[in-house]
Amino acid sequence: MKVAFQGERGAYSEDAAIEYFKNIIEPIPCVSFDDVFSNTESGKTDFGIVPIENSLAGSIHRNYDLLLRHNLNIVGEKIFRVRHCLIANPNVTLAEIRFVTSHPQALAQCENFIKRLGLKIEPAYDTAGSVRLLAESGRRDTAAIASGYAATVYKMSILTEDIEDDETNFTRFLILAKEPRQTDSPSKTSIVFSLQNIPGALYQALSFFSLKKIDLTKIESRPIPGSKFEYSFYLDFVGNIHDTQTSEAISNLEKIATSLRILGSYEQDMG
Amino acid sequence: MKVAFQGERGAYSEDAAIEYFKNIIEPIPCVSFDDVFSNTESGKTDFGIVPIENSLAGSIHRNYDLLLRHNLNIVGEKIFRVRHCLIANPNVTLAEIRFVTSHPQALAQCENFIKRLGLKIEPAYDTAGSVRLLAESGRRDTAAIASGYAATVYKMSILTEDIEDDETNFTRFLILAKEPRQTDSPSKTSIVFSLQNIPGALYQALSFFSLKKIDLTKIESRPIPGSKFEYSFYLDFVGNIHDTQTSEAISNLEKIATSLRILGSYEQDMG
Repeated sequence: MKVAFQGERGAYSEDAAIEYFKNIIEPIPCVSFDDVFSNTESGKTDFGIVPIENSLAGSIHRNYDLLLRHNLNIVGEKIFRVRHCLIANPNVTLAEIRFVTSHPQALAQCENFIKRLGLKIEPAYDTAGSVRLLAESGRRDTAAIASGYAATVYKMSILTEDIEDDETNFTRFLILAKEPRQTDSPSKTSIVFSLQNIPGALYQALSFFSLKKIDLTKIESRPIPGSKFEYSFYLDFVGNIHDTQTSEAISNLEKIATSLRILGSYEQDMG
Repeated sequence: MKVAFQGERGAYSEDAAIEYFKNIIEPIPCVSFDDVFSNTESGKTDFGIVPIENSLAGSIHRNYDLLLRHNLNIVGEKIFRVRHCLIANPNVTLAEIRFVTSHPQALAQCENFIKRLGLKIEPAYDTAGSVRLLAESGRRDTAAIASGYAATVYKMSILTEDIEDDETNFTRFLILAKEPRQTDSPSKTSIVFSLQNIPGALYQALSFFSLKKIDLTKIESRPIPGSKFEYSFYLDFVGNIHDTQTSEAISNLEKIATSLRILGSYEQDMG
């Protein structure tokens, strides 16, 4: 079972894929998010996994855009706790470390820790990639920040775990596939729709869900680029497109929406 | 008039501040967003400017968190079109360039352009900083990606303008000050509130705005970290807290919200 993810071997996305599928998968690293989508659409991989929102950094609009551009379904979600580790070459001790390298966002999320140790930062293109480069160089004065899983992949050692300043760092990943997948478990559904920008339009749209007592789990508006009078909305709610309540709410919404796309119904990750 | 911004001289935030204030300000570079807030709160600077959302990348939750933690008011907004430039040392020609350096996000936003030229990427900690380092090194085989303004600041030359793949790249900046500022111009108001996670809670909250025909310009839900049963919402709408309609809607919302903070009323940027 091939699963496409963006990044190098040992990336957080790969770790999330392994946690989600809980069995032996063949992780397929991709250079870009576009490649994750194209590979899954063409059948080169069975699934794709992409981050869609982070509790600290917000939604990844790029992946919403790609969801609209490709013909794939969301078939699962994984809420993944991001735990940064300080990783060094084998047998290096913390006292030897002078420099720290990683993706700028990971460096920013460990700012207090880095300041406390007085390390000089060296930004890199991604977290797992910084571990690979460190392994290749064999440098003893430098540590990388990445997942503990990256340390395993590159046979490096973990100096310190959970070095992030804010422990409420979660990333929600979506699992994508060509065909929708039926589930009897408690489900969530993700949709994207557009409304005319008139006062009360969103209120009316939400009334269809409120009337059916459907619980919303995410809502986000996004101005449609180039248009000052239209907005698109990302909406997640508890329910499956095969439920009567849900399908009725959606068909009512379809009547007032200027566009609507169902991205998928899938088992809810209860954490 | 001192204006704090995050980044090095020549950053997009500084450029946005200059566009917003339209007169001579003294830009004060700060290492972190926290410093922008603290300096403005302590009176070291008169204003602060921070990015709050980008049309491609989404909301910057970190700055919402800082808004809640500090006692500042939003007194203005600036919707800023991000135009990336390819910048080199003076008298260097495009044909000499082999490498390109910038913040990973800027590199990602110019992916097609970089591929077309077949350049090798060298990630840096920020956009303006990559121009400064390039100026210091004097390297002729490397270009940096940053604002045209950064080229001016570091006396570098612009090889190509508008190299971003997606021209709908806008960042919305907020202007912050200790005291609220009254305005007679068409206004927007930003609030953050929390609701109990029961079906229909958001629908009821929005009814107060719909009844007063108040136009919403942004809505975003965010799970409160560590709590599975509460959500916070970011809401922007057209109206000023000094209008009767707006203040009535807010006092109704206060009755059902578990928390509510008015971040400010300010002149709407009509673009």
